[in-house]
Amino acid sequence: LPASLVENSYGKSRVRLTKIIRRTDRHELFEVSIDIRLEGDFANSYLDGDNRKVIATDSMKNTVYVLAAEKQFESIEEFAILLARHFKTTYSQVRSATVEISRDRWERIAVDGQPHPHAFAGAGSEQQICKFDGETLHGGIRGLQVVKTTASEFSDFVTDRYRTLRDAKDRIFGTVVNGDWEYASEKADFNAAAESIRRALLVAFAKHHSLAVQQTLLVMGEAALSACPNIKTISLEMPNKHRIPFDLKPFGLENRNEVFVTTDEPYGLIRGTVARK
Amino acid sequence: LPASLVENSYGKSRVRLTKIIRRTDRHELFEVSIDIRLEGDFANSYLDGDNRKVIATDSMKNTVYVLAAEKQFESIEEFAILLARHFKTTYSQVRSATVEISRDRWERIAVDGQPHPHAFAGAGSEQQICKFDGETLHGGIRGLQVVKTTASEFSDFVTDRYRTLRDAKDRIFGTVVNGDWEYASEKADFNAAAESIRRALLVAFAKHHSLAVQQTLLVMGEAALSACPNIKTISLEMPNKHRIPFDLKPFGLENRNEVFVTTDEPYGLIRGTVARK
Amino acid sequence: LPASLVENSYGKSRVRLTKIIRRTDRHELFEVSIDIRLEGDFANSYLDGDNRKVIATDSMKNTVYVLAAEKQFESIEEFAILLARHFKTTYSQVRSATVEISRDRWERIAVDGQPHPHAFAGAGSEQQICKFDGETLHGGIRGLQVVKTTASEFSDFVTDRYRTLRDAKDRIFGTVVNGDWEYASEKADFNAAAESIRRALLVAFAKHHSLAVQQTLLVMGEAALSACPNIKTISLEMPNKHRIPFDLKPFGLENRNEVFVTTDEPYGLIRGTVARK
Amino acid sequence: LPASLVENSYGKSRVRLTKIIRRTDRHELFEVSIDIRLEGDFANSYLDGDNRKVIATDSMKNTVYVLAAEKQFESIEEFAILLARHFKTTYSQVRSATVEISRDRWERIAVDGQPHPHAFAGAGSEQQICKFDGETLHGGIRGLQVVKTTASEFSDFVTDRYRTLRDAKDRIFGTVVNGDWEYASEKADFNAAAESIRRALLVAFAKHHSLAVQQTLLVMGEAALSACPNIKTISLEMPNKHRIPFDLKPFGLENRNEVFVTTDEPYGLIRGTVARK
Repeated sequence: LPASLVENSYGKSRVRLTKIIRRTDRHELFEVSIDIRLEGDFANSYLDGDNRKVIATDSMKNTVYVLAAEKQFESIEEFAILLARHFKTTYSQVRSATVEISRDRWERIAVDGQPHPHAFAGAGSEQQICKFDGETLHGGIRGLQVVKTTASEFSDFVTDRYRTLRDAKDRIFGTVVNGDWEYASEKADFNAAAESIRRALLVAFAKHHSLAVQQTLLVMGEAALSACPNIKTISLEMPNKHRIPFDLKPFGLENRNEVFVTTDEPYGLIRGTVARK
Repeated sequence: LPASLVENSYGKSRVRLTKIIRRTDRHELFEVSIDIRLEGDFANSYLDGDNRKVIATDSMKNTVYVLAAEKQFESIEEFAILLARHFKTTYSQVRSATVEISRDRWERIAVDGQPHPHAFAGAGSEQQICKFDGETLHGGIRGLQVVKTTASEFSDFVTDRYRTLRDAKDRIFGTVVNGDWEYASEKADFNAAAESIRRALLVAFAKHHSLAVQQTLLVMGEAALSACPNIKTISLEMPNKHRIPFDLKPFGLENRNEVFVTTDEPYGLIRGTVARK
Repeated sequence: LPASLVENSYGKSRVRLTKIIRRTDRHELFEVSIDIRLEGDFANSYLDGDNRKVIATDSMKNTVYVLAAEKQFESIEEFAILLARHFKTTYSQVRSATVEISRDRWERIAVDGQPHPHAFAGAGSEQQICKFDGETLHGGIRGLQVVKTTASEFSDFVTDRYRTLRDAKDRIFGTVVNGDWEYASEKADFNAAAESIRRALLVAFAKHHSLAVQQTLLVMGEAALSACPNIKTISLEMPNKHRIPFDLKPFGLENRNEVFVTTDEPYGLIRGTVARK
Repeated sequence: LPASLVENSYGKSRVRLTKIIRRTDRHELFEVSIDIRLEGDFANSYLDGDNRKVIATDSMKNTVYVLAAEKQFESIEEFAILLARHFKTTYSQVRSATVEISRDRWERIAVDGQPHPHAFAGAGSEQQICKFDGETLHGGIRGLQVVKTTASEFSDFVTDRYRTLRDAKDRIFGTVVNGDWEYASEKADFNAAAESIRRALLVAFAKHHSLAVQQTLLVMGEAALSACPNIKTISLEMPNKHRIPFDLKPFGLENRNEVFVTTDEPYGLIRGTVARK
């Protein structure tokens, strides 16, 4: 068959690492999942099963733990840069190495009003993420759940044969924010940056009187750019997790905007990217 | 075929309700999933497809929303009691009605240091649950994730052919607590009770120097009974979510108890029930 | 605090094993997940952190792989019996050992019309399961998805304030069957038994003109008892995965029972146990 | 803040549709989930909450069911094209409409050796997918699980400080194939095409003596191009779902390549795109 291999890459996914930094007065807990992906001179493995240039994905996994032990880092961004650089520098057959890291959110348990030095409680499914491909460094957040019970409208949209939804002057607005931003530099206090962006997203969501999910998305993106000078752009993806008013008329009751069916699907999905001018 | 129907029940599961209580100064957000199960005189539907005594599960679903609109309640426990009683009282063919409710955890977003009146952020996968079967009222918690990076040992256990695990004098201890307790009465401030139990579990976990997951489980159960006089027993289920030290010897390094492989499976699973004497 | 430990157990969950039986002409693939749970004289671990009688859950995991290598077995039932007996016999502190196994379904890939000797394709999320607690042996099936597009009714059920569902003379009936049966003996061709029960459930579902999910459940249970003399009872759990006719009237169309909204929740949940007389 | 909206899109995701085609002798069951995404002149909704050009995502959902009722189609590809064209043609503010559809796999239940006319059993988590953006039509498959118990090697790869994996002359090879192909034309028997590609992937996997996952991926891609003249390229993504030999030496046993730990993570991830020359 006259066919050819036009693209290829390979790597290791879901390398899960717990690293503890044991300071005198308190421990830092770092729990992450790492994906590594290499591109380069690997075609012979596809064409002939000739693996002489192939770095086993098992060796990539080992590398994660070895570098976690040997190197100092305080953020997922630093570790992603360090890992990607390692693969690119160590192996001449690697043309590009991309590393993605997601970090679980743990918060110190409060005991007698004080954050505990070595005991943590999970802060749910929300995760901090980053991605470095040798050139561009992205940070991000996954699964930030928010809901507001008022100060949200949606009206005056296209009316045609396919519309059955009524204008809403006061609806619930619930979403699960995914955000990705591009850092302007590879040196920064990334943890502080991510925290300030997260905070800005939450506060903007809470304060904004929303005429559309689209509008709130833009306001939240602008707030993030405002809060963190070290990012150039931010992309947000906000599913509209609908709470649908339950029709109480068949039961002789009026729904005073109090009782809703919580749904997961279908969901609206709104996306936008905001850039600093 | 000489066979007989020896047991039967039916109901509706995953009825998802959002109820908002719109107070003057702030809104309460109540997001729950409800399971209803009836037992009673329903055999004719199985035997002959005679549905005359069958309350459609769709009607059960409607009932949830109607009662959510008509009734006042402040906790999942009150709503479970109210729903179970409704089915038992309304339909003579119902011998017993069991209602289980799980509630998502939402926390008010802090804006300028103040909890926002109508904007909330998700507190992850943790849930508050309850179950009422007409006689016994259980409360509970699901998915409370905790981890401590020291003050945990496990040693001096059975040594035989099947043992390869070494004694550990300082290991990570991570678990996801599921708890179920039995209330002593059907009238109480259930939200305060659940909160005090949750707090007691967290603090006991943080403070205890653990010689075994089993031992910590008992200490946590006792702390819960201590904190909440309104419960008679508490059952805890604690998976041991292992963080396994990565073997750095092949790479010429020593693991100073800092670098671990995070695992989900297999996991130890420790259970115990503690009762007030 | 005057409290006491009234119940306890512990074990290892999600021990995942692949065993290959390499016959001359073909390979057998056995992929399972195993849960082990022990009860016995383990209170000292809870009370004092005294682990001297504790078999580490890590040792339980090792035991699974060692016995998988040393013993011959052809079914999950045989392996569950063998494992449970091992723990009970080997350790005097064990009062009871319960082993549950679930097996993924793999089917040989057909090549040139012949089943391949060593290549398999996954048959989805459906699983075969079993449970042995030292006394009773249960087999079962999980996640058997079925749907029929006609020959299903539901009508003449309770009409009252909470009913809005109309009688249906021709509706879609979709469910995901979970079944558990009790074997009459600990020696049998369990694979053949499970296969004959599965087949009987499928055929009964296909052929039955259903007046209620309840009625079809009973017919399916009876078919299973008929097909497999070696079981005494069977319990079935059948969620009613609703396909709801989409209301086309607002768009000037009639729904001729052709277009439906596929839903996962809420769902009806019908249960029943059928026993041989 | 000097910031600007540089990209935006919105749509509806997870619109779930069941369509039954009721032929005289048998029914066709079509169960799909649909994602719709529009780009165009929607910036005013982001900038000012001016929704006058916004087609509500709820109207998009309605459109799916209305067109499902009004139109004839036999494949997800035809329906995706039809939907994308509808949005593009109906609304002048739409610059591009992308529709993705995934279809669950149902197979007719065999009764007395014959495929049943209206009763189906689920064929697991595997799905057929497609994507049309107004210009390019992609088909694909998700979640095709395969495993072979021999005829797979991996050896002679890079040896350095980070390698601990030994050469394997006979290992298990298990993967979950995701494939995406580009159709050469918008008119074809897409169901037959997808089926021939699926079959080619399975047979190539079964027959190939593998020296690397990479090599098998290429062979499978070539087989798909060979089997289906109507596709121009195919991209495959194959996670290496490792079955790791369990070390039996500590127990005085030898592992004769029979007993393995089944793992989900970490996993190797191999990708490649093959094009017709």
